[in-house]
This record gives sequence, C-alpha cells and structure tokens, in this order.
Amino acid sequence: MLAEVLTIGDELLTGHTVDSNSAFIASKLVERGYWVRRITTVGDDVEEIKTVIGEILARKPEVLVISGGLGPTHDDVTMLAVAEALGKKLILCEECLEKIKAFYERLYREGYIDDPSLNEGRKKMAYLPEGAEPLENTEGAAPGAFIEHEGVKIFVLPGMPREMKAMLEKEVLPRLGRRKFLQRKFLAEITDESKLAPILREALKKFKVKIHSSPKGFGKYIGLIIFAEDEGELEKTVEYLESRGIKLEEA
Amino acid sequence: MLAEVLTIGDELLTGHTVDSNSAFIASKLVERGYWVRRITTVGDDVEEIKTVIGEILARKPEVLVISGGLGPTHDDVTMLAVAEALGKKLILCEECLEKIKAFYERLYREGYIDDPSLNEGRKKMAYLPEGAEPLENTEGAAPGAFIEHEGVKIFVLPGMPREMKAMLEKEVLPRLGRRKFLQRKFLAEITDESKLAPILREALKKFKVKIHSSPKGFGKYIGLIIFAEDEGELEKTVEYLESRGIKLEEA
Repeated sequence: MLAEVLTIGDELLTGHTVDSNSAFIASKLVERGYWVRRITTVGDDVEEIKTVIGEILARKPEVLVISGGLGPTHDDVTMLAVAEALGKKLILCEECLEKIKAFYERLYREGYIDDPSLNEGRKKMAYLPEGAEPLENTEGAAPGAFIEHEGVKIFVLPGMPREMKAMLEKEVLPRLGRRKFLQRKFLAEITDESKLAPILREALKKFKVKIHSSPKGFGKYIGLIIFAEDEGELEKTVEYLESRGIKLEEA
Repeated sequence: MLAEVLTIGDELLTGHTVDSNSAFIASKLVERGYWVRRITTVGDDVEEIKTVIGEILARKPEVLVISGGLGPTHDDVTMLAVAEALGKKLILCEECLEKIKAFYERLYREGYIDDPSLNEGRKKMAYLPEGAEPLENTEGAAPGAFIEHEGVKIFVLPGMPREMKAMLEKEVLPRLGRRKFLQRKFLAEITDESKLAPILREALKKFKVKIHSSPKGFGKYIGLIIFAEDEGELEKTVEYLESRGIKLEEA
C-alpha cells in the first residue's frame, strides 16, 4: 500500500511557490489507505524528471502521483519525460484534442483570449504516452494521464491546484478502488529488536493485515503501521502483539 | 552551484503539514546563487533517511540542507540517520549540552515547564555526528549541525519553522559566501502563453539565461523569471523579448 508523490516545477525549486499540492495529494492517498513513502520535487527538465521517475519505479510503489508541467509552454515537459521514462512514444489523443479545441473556443467566446486557434503549444497538450488513458481536466485545457506500468499505477496531473484537485477527486481516486483500508501507527516498545520479526511474521499469518515496521533509533522503540480492511482484524492484531509482550503506544 | 533540500517528518507525508520550509530554504539558497536541483521529503525513519542521504551525496551537490527531526522524542532520528549515512558515530557535544541545560532552566524559571532536568530525550539532542560543527539554535533547544563530507556542505536544521529560519539566516547563509546570480521577475503582457513559447526558445538559444514562465490565470499576463549570472545577458534578453512584441513589466 505504498505510494509516492512527484511534483514538478522550477517555481517550487526557486521557492517562489510553496508546494501545497503534494500535501493535498498525500492526504487524499492516506485517506484511501495508502502510505506515502516519499515526496520528490524536481524542475521542468526532461532528464531530471526521467531520472527520478526511474528511481521511483525501482522502489515499486503501488501508486505514483505526478503533478505539474502539463501546460502549453516550452518548459512544460512532463508528458514527454514520462513517456521517455517508460520507453514509450507520445501519441496524439484525438479525443483530448477535441476537448482542448472546445476549451479554447469557449474562452474565446467568453472574451478571455483573442485567438481560439490550435497553435503548437495548445496542440502539444493532446499528446500522451502510448497506452495511457486520458484523465479529464474539468478546470483547464491540459488532460492528465493514467498508465499502469510494471505494477505501478501512474497518474499524471496538472500543477495548477484547482485543476489538480478536481482531477484527483474525479479521475484518480475512483481508480484507486473503493477498498476501505484502515491504518494505525504505533510505537512498539521492545527490549530486543530481533524478537520482533518472528512475532510480526506470525501476526501476518494469523490476521488479514499488512504491517510496516521501521526502527526509530535511540533505544527500544520501533515504529509500526498496521494496515487492515477490517477494524476487527486490526484490533485482534494489536491484542495478539501485546499478548506476545510488545507494548504498543498509538503514535 | 547545485544544492538539494531534504525535509523530514511523517506529518509531511500524511499531508497534515504543508512543507513551507523547503520553499523558504530554496529561496534563500537561490538568493545566494545556488540552483536547487531537487527537494525530497521522507518520514521519521532511520533507514529511509540514510538511503535518501546516500542518494543525494551520490549526486554531489555543493550544498545539502536538511530540516526536521532534531527534537527530543523517539521519532526524532535525523542526527542518528545523518551520522550513519556518513559512517560516523554520534558524539556528545558538551557545549551543546550546556546550552540545552540553560534552555530548559530558562523555560522552567519562566514557568513554561515543570521540570528542568536533563532527561534522556533532552540529552539526546546534544549528540552530533563526529566531526560536525554545532549550529546555534537561538529559538529552541536542539542545535543544528554543519558537516563537510566529500565536498558536500551538509547543514542539519530543526523542522520548526521559527527555529529553522533563524538558524538558516544566522548560521547557514554566512557559511555559504556570496555569489553573483541574478534573477528578475516580470509580468509579460500577452493573451496566450503558447504564443510566448517560440520566442522564449529563441531567447534561450541567444543568451546565457534561464527563463521560467507560469500562467497567471486566463487574463493577459504571464509570470516570467529570468535567471542569469551576468547583468548584460539579462538586459539583452529583456530587450530581445520586448523587440519581439512582449510587453514586460517588472514584478
């Protein structure tokens, strides 16, 4: 149930913009029962983005949410970088092109822009990695993309918060399933770390839970996150661990 | 010229806290002439922190600023993780211990705490990686640390924004020296960002500058930030953009 978030934009690296997108995305993933392991921010640079996507895929999260760099300008290179990272071509999405056209025609009719024509920058936004499913942008021009790659669900979203939030709610979360996953964090007090592993293995056999453990340094505490679909299974796991001599303190 | 920022804290990964520290740190580094290449956020987990520090050091930035996880609780494991990542021991800093003692005695005298004694958690904050120079925390208990490791200047700062900001200004920036690196922000008056793209691409070819553009909504303004090492290159870029019909207004 691990997830990662990647935000893209030079304005985040210069400090001109505080990255509130990653916290929003993380909170929604956590609500769905995912544990966000890492958040990374890189600039509008094809090579950087490709490199970091490769690194994230190697860690094999279940979900990767990418946000930023889908617009019409020279520095909006995210779709190209995603395609290259996955060894795919960028392919014209005809359905996306129609929507982009309609979007600019509406802005023109409403007097926001002087020219509704599909120039190079606007057309660029209709290209998605081969095999990607387009994600509708109800608040802006650029579509997002959903790609499953070697077991990782990859979602590519715009960086404008209003567009990103709408797409996350309407297009991403419904694709993450309706499984209700519970998660609770504990500090486990134990005197001997090596005793914990066999007890955890037994708990995993007995109950329908997932357990993430990590050392907390400085002495006798281990961080535990227990994931379960069922509150009863989670409770029974806690009781079992305590019956085996592990003192748990909710964290 | 490259720098990286690493922020640490489970509260950032759950989305409970928006990470404004990394933007603040980045903006100060950019002012000093560094280009922040990547910002990473991980949780309060020794193994995660060690892993990511190893990855950052392998990219050989000139500067790495780490923030978060220096407090007295069990999940404040940053110093331990930094020490382990560098293959160093944690060593008691006597000078730091005196300051921590004085800090809690002051809080006690002022009625903020019931017990000024140096318990295990408070004492823990006085341990720094071997060879590290302590950085004074004028706003809190936990000292920071400065370590040069294989050409990388590593600064370890607290996560509380008030403490982090004071330490960055007073202890980090004076150690970075000053480099000439200019950045100017403009509002470009144009009705559509995508018309701007080909003109920007030409400017990037002609002059030694970096240009960041961001839409300001659907009005006629686009935000531009031009970065240059040389004032002349920056001026020539501005003149060129204006000669191509882009009206620039300093922002």
